[in-house]
Order: sequence, then C-alpha cells, then structure tokens
Amino acid sequence: MTETEFLSALKTLPLHPGARGLKDDCALIEIGDETLIFNHDVMAEDVHFRPEASLADVAWKLVALNLSDLAAKGAEPLGILLGHSLGGNDMQFIKGLREVLEAFDVKLMGGDTVAGTGASTFSVTAIGRATCNPVPSRMGAAPGDNVYVTGTVGRAMLGFEGERAHMQAFNRPRPLLAEGRALAPHVSAMMDVSDGLLLDAFRMAEASGVTFSIRQEDVPVADPARADECMRWGDDYELLFTLPTDVPCPVAASRIGTVVERGAAPLMLSGEPILGRDGLGYLHG
Amino acid sequence: MTETEFLSALKTLPLHPGARGLKDDCALIEIGDETLIFNHDVMAEDVHFRPEASLADVAWKLVALNLSDLAAKGAEPLGILLGHSLGGNDMQFIKGLREVLEAFDVKLMGGDTVAGTGASTFSVTAIGRATCNPVPSRMGAAPGDNVYVTGTVGRAMLGFEGERAHMQAFNRPRPLLAEGRALAPHVSAMMDVSDGLLLDAFRMAEASGVTFSIRQEDVPVADPARADECMRWGDDYELLFTLPTDVPCPVAASRIGTVVERGAAPLMLSGEPILGRDGLGYLHG
Repeated sequence: MTETEFLSALKTLPLHPGARGLKDDCALIEIGDETLIFNHDVMAEDVHFRPEASLADVAWKLVALNLSDLAAKGAEPLGILLGHSLGGNDMQFIKGLREVLEAFDVKLMGGDTVAGTGASTFSVTAIGRATCNPVPSRMGAAPGDNVYVTGTVGRAMLGFEGERAHMQAFNRPRPLLAEGRALAPHVSAMMDVSDGLLLDAFRMAEASGVTFSIRQEDVPVADPARADECMRWGDDYELLFTLPTDVPCPVAASRIGTVVERGAAPLMLSGEPILGRDGLGYLHG
Repeated sequence: MTETEFLSALKTLPLHPGARGLKDDCALIEIGDETLIFNHDVMAEDVHFRPEASLADVAWKLVALNLSDLAAKGAEPLGILLGHSLGGNDMQFIKGLREVLEAFDVKLMGGDTVAGTGASTFSVTAIGRATCNPVPSRMGAAPGDNVYVTGTVGRAMLGFEGERAHMQAFNRPRPLLAEGRALAPHVSAMMDVSDGLLLDAFRMAEASGVTFSIRQEDVPVADPARADECMRWGDDYELLFTLPTDVPCPVAASRIGTVVERGAAPLMLSGEPILGRDGLGYLHG
C-alpha cells in the first residue's frame, strides 16, 4: 500500500474535527479560550537517515521538523513526547536531543522507549499553543495575494551532497518559530517547505482552490546552476506563505509569485502550467 | 544502553513540569481551567508482537494500551495521533484501528506514515481531558489505605499461550475508561497494570514512599495453579488503585491488601518482604 492509498483509507476512519480532514500538517484542539496544536512525525533509518548518520543530528532534526510544522501555525511550542528505539548510539541521541531542546526552549514531556529491532525508528509528538486565531492553514490563499518564501531553497540538498557550507542546513535545520509567530496574524495561508518548494506550493494552491503563478527567477536558490533541483528538493524547512497585497511582509522573505483564480493547473512556473505532482518534489510512496 | 539507563539520561534533559519528572505514565498540560493528558506508546515487531500477529489486533492493542493509561488518570479520550510504518498488511491495520476507535468513541487526529524498513514500528499519542482535579498519579498512596485491583490478572498470559477463552484478553484488551473516571475523584493513587501486578504494585509503593502489604490469596488470578506467574505477567490492563478506608469502592474490584508505613521493602507479599524488582514482572531492558 502506498502512503497516498493509506492516507485515503485513514480518511474513512472516525476523524476529530481538529484533524481538518487530514488535509493539513497539524491537528488542533480548542480548549477553553486556547487552541492547542499537535504534530507527530516519525524518522526511520534507511528512509529518513543513513545508518552512518550521527544520532545527535537525527534527534535534532526529528524535533526540529516537528517544531517547523508548529512554526507554520504560528504556535509557541510547549513540549514534546518521544518514542525511541534503543540500540543505536543512544548517548549521542540524548546529546542532540538536549541541544535541540535547549536551542528552542522546548521541554520534554514524556514518551516511550522500546528495545531495538534492527533499523531504528524514532517518533516525536510536538505540542504547541496557538498565538493567534484563526490558526493559519494551507487553505486560505486567495486570488490577488502575493506568494512568499523565507530563506533560500536547495541548501539541504547541497548539505546532503556534502557541501560543507550547507551541512548545517541538512543536519541541523532551524524551525522558524519567531518568523511563524510574526506572520501568523497576517498570512492567508502558510506551511513549511518540507518536501520541495514546488510540490508544497502545488499542494497549498490545490488546498486553497487557486493557482499559484511563480516566477522561477524570483525564487532564491542555493545554486543557480541547479535551480530546478533546488526548487524540488525537500528538507529546507523554510516557510511558504501568502499575504494580501496591502499587507507588508513582516519578516525577511522573497516574493516569488502571485495567487490567481484557479486555472487549468494549480501551479504555473514562469508561465508554464504544471498539472501533476510528479517530479515536483519528494512524494512519499 | 538499557531502558532504565536511557530513562535516567532523559531525566537530565529540560523537562516540562507536566512530565512529573518522567516518573508517571502520562504528561499533563494545564490550560485555562482544563488539564489535558498525553500518553505516547510504541509497539515494535519482535518486541511487542510476533511477525505473524494480525495487524488488526496490533492496531487495537496499540490504541487500547494508550487509552488504558488515560483510564488510570480518569481521563476522557479526545483523540489519537498515529505513526505508522507501511509494508505489513496495512488494510488489516486500518480495520483494527477502525474497530478500536469506534469501540471507545475516539477520533483520529493526524499522524505520520513512513515507508517500511523491515520490522514494523507503530506509535500512538493519545490525548485526553481530565475529568477531575487533581489528576490521579502513582504517588499518593498513604498508610491506612486499602489496595485494590479490578478484574483478574493472568488472563493475557493465558491468551498469549493460546487458551481460547483468554485470547481476547491478550489480543484485544479493553481500557477501563468508565471505571477510571468513576474512581479518579476517590483514589489516593492509581495506575494500570501493564507490566505485571507485583511489579506495578512495587512501583506504586516506591513512588508513594510507602509499603504495600498484599495478601496473595486475595489476588484474583486466572489460573490458581499458576498464581505466581499470573501476578507477574503483564498486559492485563486492569486498574491498580488505593482508597482511604472510609471510601467505599465505586467499581467492581478486589481488595488485595493494605498500605502501611514504609518498611524495609516497598512490597510485602503474604508477609514476605520483596526488596528488589527482579522477577516481579516485565522489566524493559
């Protein structure tokens, strides 16, 4: 069963309203006047990291990518729950976990530890508090809005390939929590770029029922000679968002395009329609 | 690194106050007038289930054992987050997941799916709402209280061994949510029996700084000829709790002993002191 088929099957189960139909990255629970935000991500050896990877980096990245999803909701992290398979370099994992918790002032809340069974699997549930209501989703981009992305895409790809200047981007991504909080009250839609800029832009446009018209030359890429790849590689954890034209952008970011009425394709790249997701980025299964 | 060593290392990390020092089964977040309760459990092939196990049973049990921890807090479940490794009989997993969600009126909130890498690992975070404050913990048993357990211990062991009458107890445990809610306002301490009655009683007594004096002949066991094993096998998911003597027990349960001032051992079994945890139940690593 592919991930897409499995997700379709999950959508037939009894869903919490805060699951937003499993179409968004996080789940929400409204409780009293507050909204809590939950994200659960798993990293598995041979799928998300190489057996020779430092488990300190793996621990950092696992927490960071969960926090990145909270950042895209403008949430303030409260804590994490950890599921840990023993049997690798567990002390190294603890070291990276300490570093990432301290770096982003996040607390460990609990979890579960299991004996190792070969390839390791680690899971984190991150819990955050919404700082503004409504909580941003992928679904609110409207014709006339501008499309923005923070930072430079493709850095994680270069880091994965071994370029020293970009190793940190791949091994130790930094969730944009402050930027997410500054943006949340203003954006019409927001998500983090985890699977590749073009694929995530395609998904956001589809979820919003609009077309994104992106100008390739406006996309900040880490290696201009490989712009296509930079826009398709994932793991950058930048923020992709849309703002109404009368709203000045409150953080450092590049305007890469505009939102238009839904045309034949959810995504136009420098005027060329992109109809399907194939080849746009990292498709799970 | 053993699970005990890893847990000691985790305790040196920045902890959320709701983690209760990682000494309890669940984490708490107080938000407005409400308390939310979180539990995260992992089940791994070859550790928690056999490769030939039905993934429908595995899905049921994974959710049920998370809900059992919520039950011991008197919590009302709100939803679950699922981490799923693809590659087994995924449709069967969905079937069991649907059955357990419907049986206990729990909703799916989200999660993550990863490509399979051999032995499967599944994780669930269960989120519940406290129905009474303070939320019961392992730590409140006081001298003079009575010690109770619901149901009969050892049924999961017999089910694991293939006894038809007890297969459901092993494959499809039922979290005692209603009993937990009825008990929560009255108990001085409560936990679910997941690792064996004697081991969990030992832990509760240690956490409370008291001694439990348990009369073996008062413990309801599924097979009296194997009482020792029944009290040491885990996976029963009954509730172990203490009540002040003037509080009548509000659910069906057996009184199995009394709480006394802390003596040389945290546990006395029919008058015999039990000093260490070895041989009392399922010790992780």
